[in-house]
Amino acid sequence: MSLLKIYQWKELSPKEQKICLARAKANPDTNIKQNVSDIIQAVQNQGDSAVLKLTAKFDKVKIPQLKYSPPEHLPPIDSQLIQSLQTAIQNISKFHSQQIPQPFQIETSPGIICHKKYQPLQRVGIYIPGGTAPLLSTLMMLAIPAKIANCPEIVMVTPPSPEGELNPVIQWLAKTLSINEIYLCGGAQAIAALAYGTESLQKVDKIFGPGNTYVTEAKIQVSLDPMGTAIDMPAGPSEVLIIADDTSRPDFVAADLLSQAEHDELSQVILVSPSSQLIHNVNQELQKQLTQLPRRDIATQALSSSRALLTEDISQALHISNLYAPEHLILAQKDAVKIVPQVIHAGSVFIGPWSSESLGDYASGPNHVLPTYGFARSHSGIGVESFMKSTTFQEVTPQGLLQIAQTVECLAEAEGLIAHARSVKLRREKLQGNL
Amino acid sequence: MSLLKIYQWKELSPKEQKICLARAKANPDTNIKQNVSDIIQAVQNQGDSAVLKLTAKFDKVKIPQLKYSPPEHLPPIDSQLIQSLQTAIQNISKFHSQQIPQPFQIETSPGIICHKKYQPLQRVGIYIPGGTAPLLSTLMMLAIPAKIANCPEIVMVTPPSPEGELNPVIQWLAKTLSINEIYLCGGAQAIAALAYGTESLQKVDKIFGPGNTYVTEAKIQVSLDPMGTAIDMPAGPSEVLIIADDTSRPDFVAADLLSQAEHDELSQVILVSPSSQLIHNVNQELQKQLTQLPRRDIATQALSSSRALLTEDISQALHISNLYAPEHLILAQKDAVKIVPQVIHAGSVFIGPWSSESLGDYASGPNHVLPTYGFARSHSGIGVESFMKSTTFQEVTPQGLLQIAQTVECLAEAEGLIAHARSVKLRREKLQGNL
Repeated sequence: MSLLKIYQWKELSPKEQKICLARAKANPDTNIKQNVSDIIQAVQNQGDSAVLKLTAKFDKVKIPQLKYSPPEHLPPIDSQLIQSLQTAIQNISKFHSQQIPQPFQIETSPGIICHKKYQPLQRVGIYIPGGTAPLLSTLMMLAIPAKIANCPEIVMVTPPSPEGELNPVIQWLAKTLSINEIYLCGGAQAIAALAYGTESLQKVDKIFGPGNTYVTEAKIQVSLDPMGTAIDMPAGPSEVLIIADDTSRPDFVAADLLSQAEHDELSQVILVSPSSQLIHNVNQELQKQLTQLPRRDIATQALSSSRALLTEDISQALHISNLYAPEHLILAQKDAVKIVPQVIHAGSVFIGPWSSESLGDYASGPNHVLPTYGFARSHSGIGVESFMKSTTFQEVTPQGLLQIAQTVECLAEAEGLIAHARSVKLRREKLQGNL
Repeated sequence: MSLLKIYQWKELSPKEQKICLARAKANPDTNIKQNVSDIIQAVQNQGDSAVLKLTAKFDKVKIPQLKYSPPEHLPPIDSQLIQSLQTAIQNISKFHSQQIPQPFQIETSPGIICHKKYQPLQRVGIYIPGGTAPLLSTLMMLAIPAKIANCPEIVMVTPPSPEGELNPVIQWLAKTLSINEIYLCGGAQAIAALAYGTESLQKVDKIFGPGNTYVTEAKIQVSLDPMGTAIDMPAGPSEVLIIADDTSRPDFVAADLLSQAEHDELSQVILVSPSSQLIHNVNQELQKQLTQLPRRDIATQALSSSRALLTEDISQALHISNLYAPEHLILAQKDAVKIVPQVIHAGSVFIGPWSSESLGDYASGPNHVLPTYGFARSHSGIGVESFMKSTTFQEVTPQGLLQIAQTVECLAEAEGLIAHARSVKLRREKLQGNL
């Protein structure tokens, strides 16, 4: 049995090709939408007490307050883990420090001085999902660019553990990254609290971070409400597309496919190759490696809706990748670096046999919060600029006004906006009267 | 009678202050949502024929096809208008050419080479509303940054005139800006066609441009559907906040307030000043100037829900402005340039008595598509980067892999993602076995 279903690309009709590259329907059902809307309303009406009640209900733990007070002494953490976190922080910081957008000033005409300036968002919220293992990497990938952007207020929310506590490694990371404002809540109620504020949690300007269907739906709902708050980007299940050929190592390819598949039953993995031998060998490797994984049930489920596409050559494989616009693209074929300029749509690209996607997920430097679901056609991954916004400024001298006045009056009149024209004419006549 | 209702800021309770800075509810009613959803579905099912039918219904004109074929010879246009458009194009191009985001490359650790590259969106749609006077300025503000970003395919849609034609000035602008793909359709049906494609109009990656409630609602609906398309930004009615003092000219201030008010009955204008004399004089000027405006009914309606806020000093006025986060901020008080560094939340800022907002609306250089509705807290206005997206790349050498492998294995294990750890371990062991 082959785990990845194999399709020969050129044998497929255009419609079949489209289906082959389609993602699973992502829209939550009406029930979830209504539940989330009810939760948001409850938090808007009853604030902290609603969040605490919902925490008791969904996270099965009663805590006295949302705000987390860090203990005086951090619990002990494994020293190898601390060293690994420090290496990751260092590389992620190095890469993101390159990204700070620069202000500029230009005199577009004599006397018309225009500039653009970038400022940090003032108050941002970072959502870190709970569960058995905390997403240490996501906290780093969001808090580090927020710090580099110089956001003055960074708030973290995360569900409490069954004991009503905060995971010790998250505690260590929060302290190391100077995140001092932490609230123990999760789910749609946490998103509502960030978006509208409660007695103890002041509303933020933008919410970042991944979550389950409820969290994602809540982020969408609060971002649609002008009284709500902005969100980082639309999110779907994680995905990888791997291009490989006869020279690729089937064990490496299989391992990379599996690290995507173990994320979520909805994760999508696609192998594209002109070599049927490689596809065959990868399928065998998948069988072998799968048995060794604790999360093999999730991975098997994800693989069952994934596929291998047999192409005529590498160029067709790349064409398919650009059609699909994957979140992660691994170029595992020979001379991978040569086709990099032809990659048009992808979130992040891993070049050559040693660039395992896991390196980028954790510690090589680039951000791992990337556009899924084909959004790589139009969206960038998270960067420092995601935590900033720009404002333009213009300062016009009397000379500048006189020079441009009649241009603007003419254009405003052409649009039928006479008050616009008059606001300039008034100034022009004032200056001309003074000449 | 004073046109702007006057409130003394310090006399207001916190709740009253909040109400004073609130925007009108923007959510469309359920009927509009349903109508828009029906239109989108019709276009998805019946393509061109649905769009043509809806054009006949809403724009009252029957046209044989959506695609517009430009005539061989352009109709004659007023030469002063052409000159004005050319000046505007020149200034807008100069300002936007400064904004192209730059790629970078960095070796975050020995053997781990990471880079980030910006690419133009491949196919963008620009919506230009119809009506009696065409929005020439909006076409320039969207097409120029798209051109500078180097987008290979720029599509314009705009409703046909009652004669089934394209406005001659828009024809001239489209030709001058090299926009060769034009479709005559408007409303929610045009947004649906751009988002999902029809027989004659191929789907785009992102939709830009302003519109009425139907257009805005359609943009929201298609952007929420992963099979739909991205949009520029959430949009509300246009707005200005003016800070002025005793030294400000009441006629200039009134003229600027009126040019905002004439846009739309929902436009919001706010005057903030420590001088009750200035507020009084502006109110008188408003009365006077209003009578001279063709769009005085719209402006009067807009002013009726607007207000003047009397503050204790300029510093409090600026505080109010940052709370409100206006789309346009005019600093009309003495030494305006000195308080610029304290402006935190605003879309675009106009400094000093000669920097009329109209200049920026048409021709000084910066973009006039700006965040409304308080979104200036978290969003930037349109720029070249709005027409681009970034991709990150990483290339890891065997040395790089060996150096970082154990860091990544440790972090992946801490997150319970064993397949992630194994994809790195496999490579490390392969290299170590070869050593």
